Amino acid sequence: MFVKIGTMSNKKRNIPQDTASRLSLYLRSLRMLGKKRVDVASSEEITQFLNVTPVQFRKDLSYFGGFGKRGVGYDVARLTREIERILGTDAAWKIAIVGAGKLGSALLGYSGFDELNLQIVAAFDSDPGRIGKVRQGVRIEGASRMKEILKEKGIRIAVLAVPADSAQKVGEELAKCGIRAILNFAPVNLILPKGVSVSNVDMASELESLIYKLKGERA
Amino acid sequence: MFVKIGTMSNKKRNIPQDTASRLSLYLRSLRMLGKKRVDVASSEEITQFLNVTPVQFRKDLSYFGGFGKRGVGYDVARLTREIERILGTDAAWKIAIVGAGKLGSALLGYSGFDELNLQIVAAFDSDPGRIGKVRQGVRIEGASRMKEILKEKGIRIAVLAVPADSAQKVGEELAKCGIRAILNFAPVNLILPKGVSVSNVDMASELESLIYKLKGERA
Repeated sequence: MFVKIGTMSNKKRNIPQDTASRLSLYLRSLRMLGKKRVDVASSEEITQFLNVTPVQFRKDLSYFGGFGKRGVGYDVARLTREIERILGTDAAWKIAIVGAGKLGSALLGYSGFDELNLQIVAAFDSDPGRIGKVRQGVRIEGASRMKEILKEKGIRIAVLAVPADSAQKVGEELAKCGIRAILNFAPVNLILPKGVSVSNVDMASELESLIYKLKGERA
Repeated sequence: MFVKIGTMSNKKRNIPQDTASRLSLYLRSLRMLGKKRVDVASSEEITQFLNVTPVQFRKDLSYFGGFGKRGVGYDVARLTREIERILGTDAAWKIAIVGAGKLGSALLGYSGFDELNLQIVAAFDSDPGRIGKVRQGVRIEGASRMKEILKEKGIRIAVLAVPADSAQKVGEELAKCGIRAILNFAPVNLILPKGVSVSNVDMASELESLIYKLKGERA
């Protein structure tokens, strides 16, 4: 079966953030299909586990000038590579874990970063009791060495897992050290210079909201 | 210093989900102040690290009929307890981790659940290579024993950390086993019976979006 796919433009375009988020979902779906040795998939198959319609899927891909042949489907391996290229996860990115407490340690052990081509190459903490320890092959360094190490290793992405009351301060320091993207686990809305992107993950809040709903149900 | 706080109503009210989410943030802030041995705090102090105005904070508390005395402030310990009671985290909740792969294992090791009074009392996986292993004191059980164990232990909250392609199916099973709240880490929008609340955490998507922004910047 011959499947044609338009070559996606490499040019920088102004693509909505929502589209980028959905591309990330498509990628997950495509990787899953790849693991199942599916070579060609329809937009229905690709979107079946997502909260996205096949129409939206095709529309999103049209941004990049790429689409499967009508009635034939998408070449799974090729579309995977194309989306990885669009998202930038085709190349490896170095990341630092900042804060090596409970959550930071769990993240150091989370090998799911590998799948995203993310390599944890540094970890920092301000607690002398943690500095110098090696976890998952990464040595925890003191906060005082942050600037030096981040610059030296050319790290631009940081996972922030420090307590809420130091998150803003540490975030500002990271911005000064050349960090341009922060995945923030602290339950704080970081206010950082314009060039620094922040995504927030707040597990505790999500859980508390769930408990709150459960409690209401029980009352 | 005498601080008065209105006794919050115990009645079930129809409180917006956004308010519940913010209460969870206030709680974090109050716990932080408590650790710093601050006894009384103003709405400004409580909201200083949050993306919430003191006005919003006071408005949210007014839902429950509770507020500090103008110009005096809030009794940190008491307001902490009140919000815990409202959210339902004053009582311990048992949770199950479903899926003991990379992420599930990291979550089993994440002791941050303790702070929310959440006790991981069960873990499940369908991989025979994982079943029977004990991680952080919790024995990983096979999926076939899920119903029995969840019912026996009265677990109503599950953390779903299975691959995307089995998330919907496992979610449906959990609903049948009496689970009423799911924290979903799979990048899938679960469609479940009305009585089951779902909150989604998608780290990978967040990271990919960040990388995408970085890449655009570099291009």
